[in-house]
Amino acid sequence: MTYCVALRLDQGLLFMSDTRTNAGVDNISTFKKMFNWSVEGDRVITIMTAGNLATTQAVISLLDERSVVPADRKQTLLAAPTMFQVARLVGDTLKEVIHSQAEGQQESESTFSATMIVGGQIRGMEPRLFLIYPEGNFIEASEETPFFQIGETKYGRPIILRAFDPTMSFEEAIKLLYVSFDSTLKANLAVGMPLDMHAYKIDTFETGILSRVPPEDPYFKVISSGWGEALKEAFDKLPDFKF
Amino acid sequence: MTYCVALRLDQGLLFMSDTRTNAGVDNISTFKKMFNWSVEGDRVITIMTAGNLATTQAVISLLDERSVVPADRKQTLLAAPTMFQVARLVGDTLKEVIHSQAEGQQESESTFSATMIVGGQIRGMEPRLFLIYPEGNFIEASEETPFFQIGETKYGRPIILRAFDPTMSFEEAIKLLYVSFDSTLKANLAVGMPLDMHAYKIDTFETGILSRVPPEDPYFKVISSGWGEALKEAFDKLPDFKF
Repeated sequence: MTYCVALRLDQGLLFMSDTRTNAGVDNISTFKKMFNWSVEGDRVITIMTAGNLATTQAVISLLDERSVVPADRKQTLLAAPTMFQVARLVGDTLKEVIHSQAEGQQESESTFSATMIVGGQIRGMEPRLFLIYPEGNFIEASEETPFFQIGETKYGRPIILRAFDPTMSFEEAIKLLYVSFDSTLKANLAVGMPLDMHAYKIDTFETGILSRVPPEDPYFKVISSGWGEALKEAFDKLPDFKF
Repeated sequence: MTYCVALRLDQGLLFMSDTRTNAGVDNISTFKKMFNWSVEGDRVITIMTAGNLATTQAVISLLDERSVVPADRKQTLLAAPTMFQVARLVGDTLKEVIHSQAEGQQESESTFSATMIVGGQIRGMEPRLFLIYPEGNFIEASEETPFFQIGETKYGRPIILRAFDPTMSFEEAIKLLYVSFDSTLKANLAVGMPLDMHAYKIDTFETGILSRVPPEDPYFKVISSGWGEALKEAFDKLPDFKF
């Protein structure tokens, strides 16, 4: 399992992902699920992945390889003219990989399935955020729903629905995602620390603040224990039921 | 989909269920998913159901029918000597029904699957709470995990994990379940009002307070809107992230 979230803020884009992959509960490892590309002054692109690890690694490798083969230049992350074209490239690559892995196998394509979030900004245009389906098609984040989650989305969703506001600062938004991740980590063993984070400030066209949050991160601990108490206080403040 | 929760409190047992059933999103109806039996002075039994409606209705009908056919008396909800035997009876009936419905069909048994929560108290013994699997076997609520959820369990789970305490009063516990149901209702259209509730006070051996909570219930509205604000306040009180 996996948990990744991307928020579209007025201040920019915020990405966070966990790093646990598992086959059953007795075969767990740590793998990066967040990948960044940038051409300073021109574009920043971040991709987060959920699903079959062989599939997602193949997709990322293909995208990377295409970026360095000059003949294919137009079809690369670093040369695509718009974020829409970037999303299309990622979607097509994902569809291709799933098809080729499933070919000649008895298992259905769903075994090799994966979902991705693609976000970034290209000079002269707004930052954009896409959710890519295994079929290769995609949707874009809108004013009404300016965020995407993939993987184990349910435990951490209520707090995002209640507290997210695109006008919030990066500092508040990171706090929100820590709370959302904490609820998910507590409930699903297949989501695990460390977390990867990328905070991209709008119109800077360079990789923003990248950081890896280890299990012993002091601020994460403050949020994790503080949120339990804050929730209980909030709960106590509501009026009790009366028979 | 469905959402049902049962809590084992020091004061007794608390059951809550939604009433929405659906086949797709364009075929929804309201059906009871909570069923109560009692013999005053001797026993109180509550069953809540999730899964295939044809299966769960058949199970409840069979359990009801057995209760009135004198020849089968020992194998009835109303005559079983212990709550363990009650759980076994429910589990066996559920397994039987799923098998018979799946027989000769192309679909796998999982199509006809269902899960149930059984709780109650028989004179001379403690109140007990069981979760019955489609295979007919079951587990019992323990000191460490004195509650069960079935159906769409994820959205409403974090608040129960954080705030539930078996020593809490019925009044607080009902508030807790309202919050948990509110988070679930907001996130999954296949869980819907009205809610059914049964609060059974320990050692009374009679049906406790039964009530149906309609969408316009004023206390539910207070909790629903109050919780949003309380969450935001709690969230604001946590320290922001610092770069």
